[in-house]
Amino acid sequence: MINPLASPLLADLYEYTMLQSYLEHGMEQTAVFEFFVRKLPPGRNYMVAAGLEQALVFLENLAFSTEELDWLAQRFPPPVIHYLKNFRFTGDVHAMAEGTIFFPNEPILRVTAPMPQAQLVESRLMNLLNFETLIATKAARSVLTAPDKLLVDFGLRRAHGAEAGLLAARASYLAGFTGTATVLAGLLYDIPVFGTMAHSFVQAHDDESLAFEHFARTHPSNTTLLIDTYDTEAAASKVVLLVPKLRAQGIKIKAVRIDSGDLAEHARRVRRILDQGGLQDVTIFASGSLDEYQLHAMLSSGAPIDGFGIGTALDTSSDAPALDCAYKLQEYAGRPRRKRSEGKATWPGRKQVYRNYTSDGQMAGDVLALAEHDTHQGEALIHPIMRAGCRVQAQDTLKAMRQRTLAEYTRLPETLRGLDTGPAYCVVVSSALQELAGEVDRGAL
Amino acid sequence: MINPLASPLLADLYEYTMLQSYLEHGMEQTAVFEFFVRKLPPGRNYMVAAGLEQALVFLENLAFSTEELDWLAQRFPPPVIHYLKNFRFTGDVHAMAEGTIFFPNEPILRVTAPMPQAQLVESRLMNLLNFETLIATKAARSVLTAPDKLLVDFGLRRAHGAEAGLLAARASYLAGFTGTATVLAGLLYDIPVFGTMAHSFVQAHDDESLAFEHFARTHPSNTTLLIDTYDTEAAASKVVLLVPKLRAQGIKIKAVRIDSGDLAEHARRVRRILDQGGLQDVTIFASGSLDEYQLHAMLSSGAPIDGFGIGTALDTSSDAPALDCAYKLQEYAGRPRRKRSEGKATWPGRKQVYRNYTSDGQMAGDVLALAEHDTHQGEALIHPIMRAGCRVQAQDTLKAMRQRTLAEYTRLPETLRGLDTGPAYCVVVSSALQELAGEVDRGAL
Repeated sequence: MINPLASPLLADLYEYTMLQSYLEHGMEQTAVFEFFVRKLPPGRNYMVAAGLEQALVFLENLAFSTEELDWLAQRFPPPVIHYLKNFRFTGDVHAMAEGTIFFPNEPILRVTAPMPQAQLVESRLMNLLNFETLIATKAARSVLTAPDKLLVDFGLRRAHGAEAGLLAARASYLAGFTGTATVLAGLLYDIPVFGTMAHSFVQAHDDESLAFEHFARTHPSNTTLLIDTYDTEAAASKVVLLVPKLRAQGIKIKAVRIDSGDLAEHARRVRRILDQGGLQDVTIFASGSLDEYQLHAMLSSGAPIDGFGIGTALDTSSDAPALDCAYKLQEYAGRPRRKRSEGKATWPGRKQVYRNYTSDGQMAGDVLALAEHDTHQGEALIHPIMRAGCRVQAQDTLKAMRQRTLAEYTRLPETLRGLDTGPAYCVVVSSALQELAGEVDRGAL
Repeated sequence: MINPLASPLLADLYEYTMLQSYLEHGMEQTAVFEFFVRKLPPGRNYMVAAGLEQALVFLENLAFSTEELDWLAQRFPPPVIHYLKNFRFTGDVHAMAEGTIFFPNEPILRVTAPMPQAQLVESRLMNLLNFETLIATKAARSVLTAPDKLLVDFGLRRAHGAEAGLLAARASYLAGFTGTATVLAGLLYDIPVFGTMAHSFVQAHDDESLAFEHFARTHPSNTTLLIDTYDTEAAASKVVLLVPKLRAQGIKIKAVRIDSGDLAEHARRVRRILDQGGLQDVTIFASGSLDEYQLHAMLSSGAPIDGFGIGTALDTSSDAPALDCAYKLQEYAGRPRRKRSEGKATWPGRKQVYRNYTSDGQMAGDVLALAEHDTHQGEALIHPIMRAGCRVQAQDTLKAMRQRTLAEYTRLPETLRGLDTGPAYCVVVSSALQELAGEVDRGAL
């Protein structure tokens, strides 16, 4: 029985061809790999670490089923299969907490394990950390743009598969979204779930008002009506006519939703119609190809919109659908290692990040240092998470992580909070780390 | 027990709030929904239909577990839970075969089922069809740019989660890629799997030549050596020195891989080094942030590259990470329906697409027509696939579909084959369909 979300075969083939060679040549000493991002995605001033929980679950449960072993046995010799038969991840993990703001070259996860293990987990760890960090980073921009608004993830239908939809719901909630429309994310991660109605519901009725009335009767305390199927303002007027009749029966309309056209302009007109009809308490929810730039434009123009459904742009991080991230060998058999490929050179050794703050609590610069014998002032951001394959402490709830992320935003310098590229945040590479890189390059180590 | 890839809760909440209302108001008559794409993604001249197989598997296995019902029971009244308890999809599905080239407004899938069923499956059907079609469409561009080259999907690590990695491997293979690096895609879909070695393997050795030798000994008949960890040309010279020694032991080097820098320029220099060393039979494989535009540029410049690993740009469809797609109600209770929202109006009714060809077999224009009483010349592209929840015929193998896709490319007009936007392919809306839309708008139906 194969679980496609937990399978150790969720890996590039070379992880296995290398594993075979590592075993044949007795290369099972301790390897240290770090996951980091080389460059900020275009337009971003910071990143938000996410995906650690899924990475840990993957490592904890890593094991081969009979079916997987049988398939591998047709391609790899018996010693490889023997090694994998009782495979368990027995390494250490150090990481930044989810929701931590971080910058290029700062590792957010370190794996310390026998080489074949540390290598085998590369593809899936990257797959998880890249995606959730990408989405949390994208979501943070909407949260900082519209901090007081209801923000709901609407992206499942254009997310890249089921897991992307689920993890986008999780990562955006971690980054401060109010909730998601994805039901299964509510069940799996205990995220608040929001829903309205679709155009099909209106279309299936011969009369738009009747559709509104039917839907309101079914959801008497919590109704949001979709008003753009035919004519948005005409539908808003229908809502005004409908409300007194429904109120008399104890049914309350909470909001209307607009999903097409010039959302800000429609919102203004609809707000006027609702207000003139005495429906000041009915809020306006907008959706339809939104991203943080449009949120900014609409809110700047004073559009009377109380909440936003953000879908495709969020779940695909449409303007930057991947991070320039890497999971690189930094040490093997006690010796620091370094890749020097053009444009892709790495800092060797196990690392720590120290963060300093101004007197009023604003982030004031980081030091990228060696994890040992290279202590610096500031808050150490990388913590022990897993020891010999077991967690060293219980993970926080997602709600607690979300609170921490929101607190993290309050420490972000003003210059980095906007949607445009600001001056780069200062990350200094410690002199000890620079010296080590030089020594590795000279072959002195 | 919840299977996150098959759960009926892989849905937006509104599918359930609407379902509740449909049940309360006895709206269980037959609904017809169609999935189509509104606009071509930027730069694309055509799309390649994909994801039908996964959509059918989803529909066939749709059922609620106890855990899912318990969760829903806290949010929905007993009649809804009662309805869902023995829920099965009992509808019909019509669709274009996977690998069919198609254009905006042409439905590639139609669901005909009682309204609550047809509505409930919306989110996941869109999630699957959007993604696989997106990736097949992106992959087709590389296949047409480099038809005679080895093309391998390298994208798992930056795909959006596990399912995205797996389905991108499937969709790109369907569209003509040679294979994938993703091991689990090999097992699940019987796709050829390719792998080389990582920089970490070289870095873990104190000497690059020793790393090459170790890897070659482990894979004596099928070795690709990664030569860009430190200095690409120096490593190519090491390969030349190494080969005679390995040959004497019956070990063959098949290829070298370059993963950084100016790939075309390195390939030229490496080719020269290999040729001068008598290694004319060692091929060159390139990877590293590639897409179809770079393939085109490198091949146009005559770069001696025999194969390409394409990762992030493929698996995320990075220049267009989503389709402007919709799953819209076109008929309910025997009456055609139409959404008229600004910029999002749809064609009503059940539809068929007829495709015409020139005498030499080139695609010459489509007719978007009504499925009944509106027959036109040409090949009808939409076929019955599922009847009352069961498939009407066995699905082709993926290999057979891939062959059909490759044959499909030969019928694509020359003007649409390139990477730049060509003149739009002609899709005519039949007069019967236009009349129907007018009648629906006038409320005449």
